[in-house]
Amino acid sequence: MTTETASAPGAVWSAALHAEVQQFYAYQMQRLDLGEAEAWALTFTEDAVFDVPTLPEPVRGRAGLVASAYGARAALAAAGERHRHFLGMLDVRPRPDGTVGVRSYAIVYASEIGGASRVHRVCVCEDVLVRDADGMLRVSARRVTRDDLP
Amino acid sequence: MTTETASAPGAVWSAALHAEVQQFYAYQMQRLDLGEAEAWALTFTEDAVFDVPTLPEPVRGRAGLVASAYGARAALAAAGERHRHFLGMLDVRPRPDGTVGVRSYAIVYASEIGGASRVHRVCVCEDVLVRDADGMLRVSARRVTRDDLP
Amino acid sequence: MTTETASAPGAVWSAALHAEVQQFYAYQMQRLDLGEAEAWALTFTEDAVFDVPTLPEPVRGRAGLVASAYGARAALAAAGERHRHFLGMLDVRPRPDGTVGVRSYAIVYASEIGGASRVHRVCVCEDVLVRDADGMLRVSARRVTRDDLP
Repeated sequence: MTTETASAPGAVWSAALHAEVQQFYAYQMQRLDLGEAEAWALTFTEDAVFDVPTLPEPVRGRAGLVASAYGARAALAAAGERHRHFLGMLDVRPRPDGTVGVRSYAIVYASEIGGASRVHRVCVCEDVLVRDADGMLRVSARRVTRDDLP
Repeated sequence: MTTETASAPGAVWSAALHAEVQQFYAYQMQRLDLGEAEAWALTFTEDAVFDVPTLPEPVRGRAGLVASAYGARAALAAAGERHRHFLGMLDVRPRPDGTVGVRSYAIVYASEIGGASRVHRVCVCEDVLVRDADGMLRVSARRVTRDDLP
Repeated sequence: MTTETASAPGAVWSAALHAEVQQFYAYQMQRLDLGEAEAWALTFTEDAVFDVPTLPEPVRGRAGLVASAYGARAALAAAGERHRHFLGMLDVRPRPDGTVGVRSYAIVYASEIGGASRVHRVCVCEDVLVRDADGMLRVSARRVTRDDLP
């Protein structure tokens, strides 16, 4: 097992990268669930493509991501619910071009405030991560599929 | 990404720390779910403060933690259920004072013995971890909130 | 915390091993859920013992594993469901003989295609991992218990 970083050409898997990717998702999903739309959008590249079943068509760029996060926040407030996005089972695959492919499972839990908690959605999340000029990992492309849809 | 440890002054995030924190929680939660109250209590500092919604007021110190774990075990046996505490999405943040803040999601699953399994609780867990004199990480303060409560 | 590898005699826990084990399970479970029976079976040693509640008796060896995976795939297709195996809370314990014991929690989510998602099973998974001649970790023994069974 090597300890090379993902940004090197011909990068290989490393324990350090796997842990960094886990920390990245923890930070990213907590921002979303806290309703911190701008901080969440900054975990994507400027021109990121975001393709999820809850949106009628893919969003491109941070302004659209911020709008979609605010929309989700308003919908949850109106429904009297809280959602948590819980990712795991991260299959992390550095690619020859320096990007990192990550295929993971994303469970969305919903809790009715004053009521019960439940599994809301079971999803597969396929991301392309890139190391940006400031050294941070960001999502440049995300495609989410839902297990309950054909 | 550095490989410095969390106990150093001005500690920084490292992949090694992130993995160690994950191992810590796996060990801690498995002790609780196995009903090993004393071993579980030893994963907290001697004067730890434990503030969770299932207790009427915060517990301070290991004797109180042991009592609360035995209470939970007896309640589960009476109900004919098993619980599993599943933590994830660990946002690990070393602090300048050498402690480590960890904000995570904790899902509690319940299974009726001879019946069905379900999501019981969806929680956010905010811990302060310290590296004790023996080199082990321990919880010095825990605050848990439940998504279904106002 | 050391950085020695698990295959060394008298191996000790390391952050690198913990991350490698997580990557291993992500790869393994995704193969199963994708119905890639042969690739999944290759994550077990040639003579692995696989003891799970859904099978009437333990399976030994890859041919039996492939058959069981195809059986599960056919049953899911007939039921119009998708399953996801989500492991976490990995308590990773290298042993003096060079093997690695891993006790983890495994949640199985089920989604009816065109319907709802739910928690299907809550399990404890006890594995013995070995580092094979090609340097890859593989399962040599697995024992799974279900929380809903007596």
